Order: sequence, then C-alpha cells, then structure tokens
Amino acid sequence: MIQHPILKQNPSLIIFLPLFYAVWSDDVLTPTEIKTLHTLINKQRWLSPEERSFLINQIDPSLAPSAEELKNWLAEIRRVDSSHATSFANLGNALAALHGQIMSAEVKQSLEGVEEMLGVISHEIVHTFYPEKRKTLTQAQSTQQSFNTEAMASVLEGKHANLIAKVKTLLSDPEFAYLDTDSLSLQREKVLQWAKHLANQGFGSIAYPKEYGGQNDMAAYFTIMETLSYHDLSLVVKFGVQFGLWGMSVYFLGTEKHHKKYLKDIGTLALPGCFAMTETNHGSNVRGLETTATYNHQDKTFTIHTPHVLAQKEYIGNAALHGQMATVFAKLMIDGKDYGVNAFIVPLRDASGKILPDISIEDCGRKMGLNGVDNGKISFNQVIIPKDNMLDRFAQVDDLGKFFSPIASDNRRFFTMLGTLVGGRIGIPRSALATSKSGLTIAIRYGDQRRQFGPEGASEVPILNYRTHQRRLMPLLANVYALHFALQYLTDRFINRNEEEMQEIEALAAGLKPFATWSNTQTLQECREACGGKGYLSENRIDALKNDSDIYTTFEGDNTVLLQLVAKSRLTEFKQEFSNMNVLRILNYVADQAKTSLAELNPFTIRNTDEEHLLDPAFHLSAFKFRERDILTSAAKRLKRHLDSGMDSFDAFNVCQHHLVEVGFAHVERVILEQFQLAVQNVKDENCQQVLNKLCTLFALNLLDKNKGWYLENGYMEGVKTKVIRKHLNQLCWEVRQDAVPLTDAFKIPEACLAAPIAVRK
Amino acid sequence: MIQHPILKQNPSLIIFLPLFYAVWSDDVLTPTEIKTLHTLINKQRWLSPEERSFLINQIDPSLAPSAEELKNWLAEIRRVDSSHATSFANLGNALAALHGQIMSAEVKQSLEGVEEMLGVISHEIVHTFYPEKRKTLTQAQSTQQSFNTEAMASVLEGKHANLIAKVKTLLSDPEFAYLDTDSLSLQREKVLQWAKHLANQGFGSIAYPKEYGGQNDMAAYFTIMETLSYHDLSLVVKFGVQFGLWGMSVYFLGTEKHHKKYLKDIGTLALPGCFAMTETNHGSNVRGLETTATYNHQDKTFTIHTPHVLAQKEYIGNAALHGQMATVFAKLMIDGKDYGVNAFIVPLRDASGKILPDISIEDCGRKMGLNGVDNGKISFNQVIIPKDNMLDRFAQVDDLGKFFSPIASDNRRFFTMLGTLVGGRIGIPRSALATSKSGLTIAIRYGDQRRQFGPEGASEVPILNYRTHQRRLMPLLANVYALHFALQYLTDRFINRNEEEMQEIEALAAGLKPFATWSNTQTLQECREACGGKGYLSENRIDALKNDSDIYTTFEGDNTVLLQLVAKSRLTEFKQEFSNMNVLRILNYVADQAKTSLAELNPFTIRNTDEEHLLDPAFHLSAFKFRERDILTSAAKRLKRHLDSGMDSFDAFNVCQHHLVEVGFAHVERVILEQFQLAVQNVKDENCQQVLNKLCTLFALNLLDKNKGWYLENGYMEGVKTKVIRKHLNQLCWEVRQDAVPLTDAFKIPEACLAAPIAVRK
Repeated sequence: MIQHPILKQNPSLIIFLPLFYAVWSDDVLTPTEIKTLHTLINKQRWLSPEERSFLINQIDPSLAPSAEELKNWLAEIRRVDSSHATSFANLGNALAALHGQIMSAEVKQSLEGVEEMLGVISHEIVHTFYPEKRKTLTQAQSTQQSFNTEAMASVLEGKHANLIAKVKTLLSDPEFAYLDTDSLSLQREKVLQWAKHLANQGFGSIAYPKEYGGQNDMAAYFTIMETLSYHDLSLVVKFGVQFGLWGMSVYFLGTEKHHKKYLKDIGTLALPGCFAMTETNHGSNVRGLETTATYNHQDKTFTIHTPHVLAQKEYIGNAALHGQMATVFAKLMIDGKDYGVNAFIVPLRDASGKILPDISIEDCGRKMGLNGVDNGKISFNQVIIPKDNMLDRFAQVDDLGKFFSPIASDNRRFFTMLGTLVGGRIGIPRSALATSKSGLTIAIRYGDQRRQFGPEGASEVPILNYRTHQRRLMPLLANVYALHFALQYLTDRFINRNEEEMQEIEALAAGLKPFATWSNTQTLQECREACGGKGYLSENRIDALKNDSDIYTTFEGDNTVLLQLVAKSRLTEFKQEFSNMNVLRILNYVADQAKTSLAELNPFTIRNTDEEHLLDPAFHLSAFKFRERDILTSAAKRLKRHLDSGMDSFDAFNVCQHHLVEVGFAHVERVILEQFQLAVQNVKDENCQQVLNKLCTLFALNLLDKNKGWYLENGYMEGVKTKVIRKHLNQLCWEVRQDAVPLTDAFKIPEACLAAPIAVRK
Repeated sequence: MIQHPILKQNPSLIIFLPLFYAVWSDDVLTPTEIKTLHTLINKQRWLSPEERSFLINQIDPSLAPSAEELKNWLAEIRRVDSSHATSFANLGNALAALHGQIMSAEVKQSLEGVEEMLGVISHEIVHTFYPEKRKTLTQAQSTQQSFNTEAMASVLEGKHANLIAKVKTLLSDPEFAYLDTDSLSLQREKVLQWAKHLANQGFGSIAYPKEYGGQNDMAAYFTIMETLSYHDLSLVVKFGVQFGLWGMSVYFLGTEKHHKKYLKDIGTLALPGCFAMTETNHGSNVRGLETTATYNHQDKTFTIHTPHVLAQKEYIGNAALHGQMATVFAKLMIDGKDYGVNAFIVPLRDASGKILPDISIEDCGRKMGLNGVDNGKISFNQVIIPKDNMLDRFAQVDDLGKFFSPIASDNRRFFTMLGTLVGGRIGIPRSALATSKSGLTIAIRYGDQRRQFGPEGASEVPILNYRTHQRRLMPLLANVYALHFALQYLTDRFINRNEEEMQEIEALAAGLKPFATWSNTQTLQECREACGGKGYLSENRIDALKNDSDIYTTFEGDNTVLLQLVAKSRLTEFKQEFSNMNVLRILNYVADQAKTSLAELNPFTIRNTDEEHLLDPAFHLSAFKFRERDILTSAAKRLKRHLDSGMDSFDAFNVCQHHLVEVGFAHVERVILEQFQLAVQNVKDENCQQVLNKLCTLFALNLLDKNKGWYLENGYMEGVKTKVIRKHLNQLCWEVRQDAVPLTDAFKIPEACLAAPIAVRK
C-alpha cells in the first residue's frame, strides 16, 4: 500500500494504515469485519471512487499483503511518536501529518466509530506498534525479600540449630557427593559407607542411653532423620532401619540383657540388623502375621518358622546384603496355644556376612526408588534361638515355661508393643517434609528464573509470575511451613509424653503421617511438572526425590488405613483401641456432642465476605473446628443408623469408610492449623511473623477452598463467601510469590545436597 | 474364675462369664463401666456377700485375668451352642444350664439391663464368641461377570481389531521380552532393535502414501501407537519420534521433493531422524525459538546457527545416538529481516553414525523414565545446508531470494505449520490411555486377590471390597472407558477433517491431551498406592508405567498452557487464534450468550434427589453443559471487567488464568461425557451396554461430585442433592467392582506385556 502511486497523489489515505495493519497482522478477517470496513470506506465522500476502491482492495482476503509488505507498513507507522497511539485514527492522523496532511475532525470521528464496532481496546493499540513500550504488572513482579533469611532459619531450626549445622556440614563433604550410577550394588555399598560415617559421628546412637554410647536424646534423632533427608533418601531409610527400627525395637521391646548385649554395636553399625515384621500376606494387618515362634521348654529355646511362602518376611531393609540379625515378629506358640505376635532376635548372617543355616534370603531387586537400600525376603526353616532372644519387655515365658504378661489381651499387648515404635510415624513425615522442602526449593528457584511467554513483542516473563504457577506452588509452600510446626509439635508431645497421652499421640502421628506424605507426593508431582522437561532429567533430582519418597505413603502404615485409625480414635471418648463391645455407647456419646454446632450458622456469618473476617485467624480455626466436629458427628450418626438397622458392624464401618477418612483429615487439618497459628504468635522477629502470618492464612484459605464443597453442602458458608475466599487465596499466592525464593532459602538446604543444575547457586 | 472353688459351691455364678469375658477381652475397663458392673453385682440379692465380693474381684483392673485364663474362659463359653448368643444374659443362662442351673427371669433381666447401659450391640455378641459364624456383605463380595469379555473387546477395538491383534502378537514374541537392566546403552540399543522389528512389519510407514511404502492409513498409525503402549513406553516414544515427529514433519511440512528423497527410508528406519524444535530457553513458547537459518542467495544455501548455549536444541529424541538427520525449527533470516520460525532438514551424522562437522551433540543423560530413548542437545555452529532442505509447504524462498508465503502473518503461518503436527496431541493421550489401562489391570487384579483385615477372627477380605479402595479405583476405570471413546472420536474427527474444522479439532486435542495425561498420572499414582509395597517393586511394572509416562503432561504441550489455548478458542466465536485486536468484541458476544442459563435453576430441580433424575444421562449432560457455558460466560465477564477498567490485556488474562484453565476443563469434560453417552447408545450387545451405562453414570457422578463446590457455589444444586449424588457414586463403585476384573480383561492386554507377577495369569 505505502509504495502505491495513489498515495503519492493523495497522501491522506495513509490515515487508514494503522487500522489496516492491525487488521492484517494477526487475524483472519471475518465477513462481519470486512463489511464494517467497507461501510467505513464507502462513507468517506472526500475520497474519489478510485481511491475508495483502492482502499477496499487493501482489505480483500484474496489480495492479502505479503509478510514483507506488512513489515514495511509497521516501519512506516513507527515513524510516528508512540504518544499518538491512543486510537488508530489518532495514529493515522499523526502519520498523515508526517506526510504534510491535515485531516478533518469528521474523518477522524468516522474512523473512531469503526474502532468501537470492531471492539478495539484503545489502551492496547500502542502495544501493536510499539511493543517495547508495554509495561505490565505480570512482567514487573519479582522476588522482593521482606524478612531476614537467617532470622527465619532460626525460627525454623530452634534449639537444634547446632546439630542441624553439623549434619549439613557432614552432608556437604565431598565424600557425600551423589553417585551417578544405576548399579544397585554400587549404590548399596555407598549408602552403607555413608551410614558408617554417620555412626562414626555418634548420630546413630544418639537416642540410646549414655551407657550404650548414646546421648539419650530422641529429639536429636528425629532432627538428624529430617536433616539427612535433604540428601539421598536411601541413606535416610538405611539409617532409620538400622538405628530406628532395629535398634529401637531392641531398646523398647527388649530389657536390660538385650540392651547390654546389642545396643552399643547397633549404634556403631558394628552389628547391622533388620526389623522383620511385614510378611508377603500381611502388610497392613500385621496382627495376622503367620511366622511362628514355638517355645520348647525342654531346651529353653524358640523355633522360628515360616509356615508357607506367603508368610515369608518381605521388603525387609538391610536383609538382602548387610543385616546380621533381625527383630522378627512371630506368633508365640506355647503348648499348642497361640499367644499372639511377639518379637524375637534372630541371627541371620555370621560376622563375615555368610547366611546362617536354615535361613533363606532373597533380594527384592530393583524398586521404584530407594535403590540404595538392600530390601530382601527372609524365610526361616525351623530356626532355633535361645530363650533369651525373646524381646521380653511386655511378655515373658517364665521359668516354668508359662506365658506371662501384664497385658492379658493379645491384641492390646500387640498394640502396646507397636505403640512404643510410633517413632517411625514421626520420622517418616519429617523426612517427607524435608523432601518437599528440597522439591519446592528447586521448583521455586527455577520458576523465578525461567522465562516463557510475555506480552507480544516484549521480554518474556518468569513463569512464577503466572497465576496458575503460583496457585500450584504457593499453597504447597504454605503446607510445608504448616507441617514444619505441626511435626515439631508432634515430636515435642512424643518426647515429653506420659503414658495416659500415648493413645492421643499415636492418633496424632497416625494423622500427620498421611497428611505429610500425601502432601509430599503431591508437592513433588507439581514440582516435576512445574519444571517441565528440566524436571524430568535425573540431574535435577526431582526424579530421585519423587521416586524415593513415593513409598512413604505406604510404609509405617498405609495412609488410608492410618486415617481410619485416627477416625476410630476420634470416635472414642477414651481414645482407646476401638472395639466392637462398646460401639453403640461411643456413638451415642458422640451424637450427643453435636448440640452447639448450629449456633455458628447464622445468616449473617455464612454470607460475611468482609476482608477482616475472611483473613481472621479466629474465623479460620473455628471453620476448621466446625468441620472437624460436624463430620465426626455425622459419621457417628451414620454408623449408629446402620447398626440400629441390624447391619454387621464390619459392614457398617465399610459403608462409612470414605466418611471416616474425612474424619481423620478434618481432625489433622485442625491440629495443623492450630499449631501453625500458635507458632506464628510466638515468633519474635516482626518481619518473619508478618510473612508467616501470610503463609498461615494461605494454608487456611487453601483448605477452606479445597473443602468448599463440604462447607457449602452443610450450610456453613454461602457461594458469595466461598467466591471471595478464592479471590483472597489468589491474591495471597500473588503476594507470597514475592517472598517465595527467600522462604525456600530459609530452609538452608546445602547446595551440595540440592545439586540440581537448574537450582544450585554457585 | 472358672477353676475357683466358689463356683463349685454355686455354679450359677457362671452366668456372668460371657459378660466378664467381653469386658476383658479387648478393652481397658473405664471407671464408669466398673461402676455400672459394681451396681449390677451389688443388686444381686440372691448371692452371698462372699460371692458378690468374688465377682467384684473379677473386674478389678489390678487383678486382671491372665491371657491363658481368658483363653480358658472362652473355651468354656463355647461349649454352649452359638444360637444362645443373642445377649450376654442368654449366653450366660445357657452356660448355667449346662452346669445344671436354672436362673430366674429377674436375674436375666438385670443382666440385660446392664448390657444396654454398656452400649452392647446385641446382634454382634455372637461374633465375640463364635467369630467363625460371622457372615458379612463385605466378605461376600466378589467378581461377578455380567457380560462377555470378547464382546466388550470388540466394542473397544472396533474396525481395528485385526491390526491390534497383529501388534499384540508381535509384542508377545520373546524377542520383545523386557530387559531387566538399568544400563542406558543396553536399553537404548534394545529399543532401537524393537523399533526396527516394527518397521519391518510395515508399521512405521503405515501413515505415509503408498508410493513411499506406506498404506496412507493415519488411523492405523494411532492404533499402533496406542497398542504399543501396553509394552515399553520408550519404544512408543522412539516409534513416535521416528515415524511421527520426524517422518510427519517431512511429510506435512515438506513437498514432493522431500517426500521422494526421504519418506521411504524414514519408514523403514534406514534413515533415523529427529524433530528438533524445543530449545533450552524455549519449550512452551516455541514461537520464540532463537536458532537462526540465514539465507545466502549467492550460493543458495541456509546457514543454521545456534546463537548461544541456551538456544541449543534440547531433549531431542534420537539425537544422542541414532539420528542421522533432523527437522530443525529456526528463525528464517533474509537480508537481515526475520521471517519467523520455519523448518529445515539438517544432516547430523553420516551413515556410520559419526557426528558431522560443526555439530555438537550432548547426551541428556538419565531421566525419570523413557531411558530407552536417546535424548540429546544439539548445537549448530554455522552449519550450511542446501536451499532444497527448507521444508517449503507453507513458505518458500523464491528464485530471486525473496520470501514467499500464502500466509502473510509470521504468527499465523507458524501456528498453521504446528497445526499439521497436531497428531502428536492425539498419539500421546492415546498412549496415556493404554498406560492407564495397564496400571488399572494390575491394581484391580491384585485388589481382587489380595486380602487384608476382616471381621475379628474371620477370614480376611479382598482389599477391592473396601469402599475406599473402590472409590480410589472404580472412577478411574470409568475414566479410562470414557477416554477410550472420546479419543476415538478425536481421531475420527482428525482423520475425516476438512480445513474449516481444523481449529476446532486442534482445540479438542489441546483439551483431551491434558485431561488424558493428568488422568493417567493420577491413575498410576493410585495404582501404585493401591498395590502397596508390591506396587513399589519394579517387577510389578507400575514403576515403569508411572515414570515413563510422567512426562506426558509436559510434552506435546504443557497441560496448563494447552488448557488455556482451549479456553481462548472457546472465547472466540470464530474459533480463531485469539488476538488482542478484538478481545472486547468477543467478550461482548460471549457475555450476551448467558441468557438462558438461569432457566435451569428452578427450586425444584436444584433440590431434586429422585434416583430416576440423578441417574438420568440427560441430567448429567445438561449439568455438564451448564457448567461449560456458565464458567465460560463468567470468565468472559471477568476479563471484560478488567479490560474496561483499563487493565493491560496480558495482565487481565493472567489474573483470570486459573479461571481459564477451568473453562478448558469444563469444555473437555462435556465433550467426553457426550461422546461416551453416544458410544454407549450405539452398543448392540445388551450386557455390554448395561455395564457401560453404569460406567458412564459413574464417570458423570464422579465429576459432578468433584465439581460439587462449583455447582453449589453457583446455585445449580443444593446440598441435599450433592449428598445423594455422593451416595449413588459410592453405590455405583460397589456395583462396578463386581465387574471390575472382567472390565480390565476386556482390554486384552497381552500377559507378556503386563508381566507383573502380582497380576499375570499363567
């Protein structure tokens, strides 16, 4: 168009150029648009018929301008200063002025009329021609640290800061550099070496009594487990199997004779061992284990035996290669009577590593992850062990060969034994927490740097500035902070427990373990996707973090099974093992508790969308509490209805199983929020407190949004309220994003552990 | 108690034995319970003070019976016939009768009174003493096939049954046995061999024209991709890279000269090649690629160049080892002007596999999965290629060295080119579908066999009988069937397309790909967890299925980005590439469409909980359509509000990004339901139709439940309705479970491909 002789004759025609360029540059012209433009052109009585027909040709789809021509049009238009680009008419007018033409107001007006019809956004016109002038909020967002990282780290690390620093220093040693190999044997060997280094530092025995080389510091043990989880999770599990499962089963289920004989060597890793509970046929339902330990009074021994192949011990860590002994869980048989599951120390290998007679061990082979741990299957063929090898804290065979236990019920005794091992349900969620922290650090640092897309012609935008990316990652960051404080609380409760609190603490662990491990699985999945192809490369470590921790939702208790335990515990006033005997009494009690609920459901509150109300921690907590109580009550009523109708209680619990899982979730979510709120209140540093407050609000709003179906269904909120909650949730994600990188820096994960090229700072 | 001399004197005391046994057998006695029992005993005026004090001792926690004693009590009670176990009093009465005692009605009544106070469920008493008599619905459930597997298989396979059978036969050949190795080089070599076997069968070239060795059958190509996905996904991706990405880029972007020269050798795998689009800095935003192809008119060549390290090609399949050529996407520069991204054939290696000069290739190394594919990075250092190597279907450089294209806009031309490659977005979701089918077959077969827990003392229950297990897996099974028909529909639309439909089909693929791949990721995660520890062992293949397919949510377009494309397409009346130019016109239009919505929201319908209504396919579809329309309208209104307020359109789209993703979901969910319903209507076999109807209802109710927050928020349903929907959803899961194993059998996945020891039938 711009080279055409007709423009030489009448340079005014150039007033149409910006409009025509915009029409051609991106879109296919629709018939309606063409018609609108035809009408415009035909209305221009100041033009000759020839000129009008020329202009009409310019918007004929069969005579589209070439790519090169369009580029020349743009160059021509850009000769005008961008300040004129408030409408195509103004821009065209300025262009005409450059060519010495002064256009009438009428012409400009008719062009402007057409712009409205075409649905042009006037404040966007400038971007079509001068993309470099575009400034958007999305581009402008960036990391803006609002608090001191060291201050936050000290809030998180608390009194264990020194120990944490020591572990991190060790993990940063070149000796702990990750192996780049898929060879199982190399990985397993390396992990064993690492575990020995840890033992040499006294980390393995730290929870044991001083007389056996320890420091009697269980809290330190959990801190080490968590901190190690910034490194290879195979090491964490190897460490946990040796010093936790094996060592603590001897410590908690055994008596002084066992402690004296074994604990010191366990703590130094001179005596590697296993925790042989799970069998092929019995994983979750360990009460049903089939391995037998038959007492022989004549020679004062037990015979350990695997009755059939599906009763073999399976997935046993340390079994395939290194374990020399095992705590074996087996049904104790005396004189043909079954005294339930008890624990026994059974030698597996001699000191040279040779498997002992009548014991068969098979390697579990390659796994989805944790390939540095040598899991194996163990079978016993009438293996004889001395009587002293029974771990006899809770049950003994006396000198007459009679069974004795202070706890008469086999079930209660077994669950009491398991209760002493609840530490595993604290160690695993804390390990999951550290794993999530690593994943989020990688994904958030990458998202802050990685740019993709942007306004047309302008520079690209960090992907963490996109709202969907924020909605994927920021609530998970809030989760991690929330869980940090909740797991600290669980640990403190466990460390400072008395016997009456045990069942409450067990339920707490049974709830936090599923929440933390599922949250971890979800977090690493989002991190993988948030890092795109880079997240798929093993070098960036999300692969290992994700696959190694995937089993956390299964081991130390399947998450779904655990949440039902929580629910059953919630259903009993006395927090005891739920039994059939008094189901109805319990349900009656719980149903009676429902009285006050409805008071909160006043029409004003359920529609209240004031910002002050929606961001109020008291509102959050009371909403969580309402849900916790109401869902428990409705589950109890439902169970009672079924039982009253004559349904078998096993069936009734099955019909309500999904509901019970929700009871478990509602409980643990309330505990987490409550502990997070309390922790934030106690923070001294104001800047830290402020950002933690935001995270706490984000945690609460995210769960209110997630559970909005339930709240709406039960009349606790109306749609107007849940919609505004979502708005605040998005806004908080936007705000937290600015502090997201520093919030992950505060985890102080050693760069050597992080190791991902997309995230590491040199 | 039973050996005590006092019982010899007064055998009537034994009437208390069942009650005392129940009290001790499981629970800790609470103070309230003890008090209740004391009152009961003290009321028994027929007993001597000595006898009463003896009985009171029996419930003294400090004098608890031993485990052995309890066992003896039970044996004693079981001498009575179980028919008496309707209350502890009746059972005790019958026991007393065995001892020759006849008790008064008064005594029985006082015992029964206490049972009520203790909250005993009378129909459960029998289980405490005779657990073997217990029969529950949960135990009784089992696989009950309601249809013919072959008939269902033929519904699924349709006209491609023969081809599918042929591929399956090949995959079952011992030559295709899985490798048990982590050696990258062995895996890659094996996968290449497998791909050659497929090429030898003519599978590679099947979509190409007959003159180049093909059968011109694109539908067959997709069927092969899907069927191969029952085997190793590395093979699927290798196959897709060679015959799909590499071959079809030559086919669809090139012209006859390229077809003649390359297609035949590509189809036989004589010429392995790559599809080099993605760069380190540009993955999703491929329009921003930085590799340049500079035209040199003097010698009629292009110079391909990587300007900086972050502009190198990355993740390129076939690059690290086997590719001899690549379709390289690069910005075409002529005389210093940028003509946007175009495609060029660039030789990488000579026939012996030696990398050519000025080309650097780096191995991407180990990945989370797909380790049988040799992904690499490619850099070009001023590599010169002849002019003929430009794939010139959509743009050419003419004899004068001028750029020519029928599509003037660089953007439009690029998206048109990409449009021809939409096949990848069909192949990937179909591969994901087959992967989900494998995972579900393994998890469902295992769940049907694996037993864990059960009523106290009774046999254990298949875990698939548990409601939570059903709620985890059955909706995913319904998803897979739904997606099967929806992807068939997408394929048919693609095969039978005309140019005007292309943008609709692209949007359909852009929506189904995220839905299918996210559904697959979720499915395999659930399958892993549903198989517990067994699911974690590599031998059971969920490891490989999950890790190999994890990247499906990223490649062929990041899912979140694709769903926004769908939304933008939905926002345009004319289904064109969304441009800034006419945003407002489009939004005005969409906002106008909202008229009829509210008519559906009448107070009767939103509370209608009739079974007939809730299970009615017409209700489901109209609910899905309502959501699709309403969410689109509200997104449009929201965007318009922001633009009207002067917000930059880039910011406005960012603020609404999460909303737009929901627009994409709502659309694709409606399409899937609609196609599933249509497909079920057309099924001839009545039994198949019946079970498919259940799956279709399950699919619909599951999504209505998942989206209930939205429906409640927007007043389409009330809480009473969403609650009853959940009830039906649970009930359907229970019903579908019975057919679950046969429903996976109907996929007819070769046992050799399935391979998981926990699932394979010998």
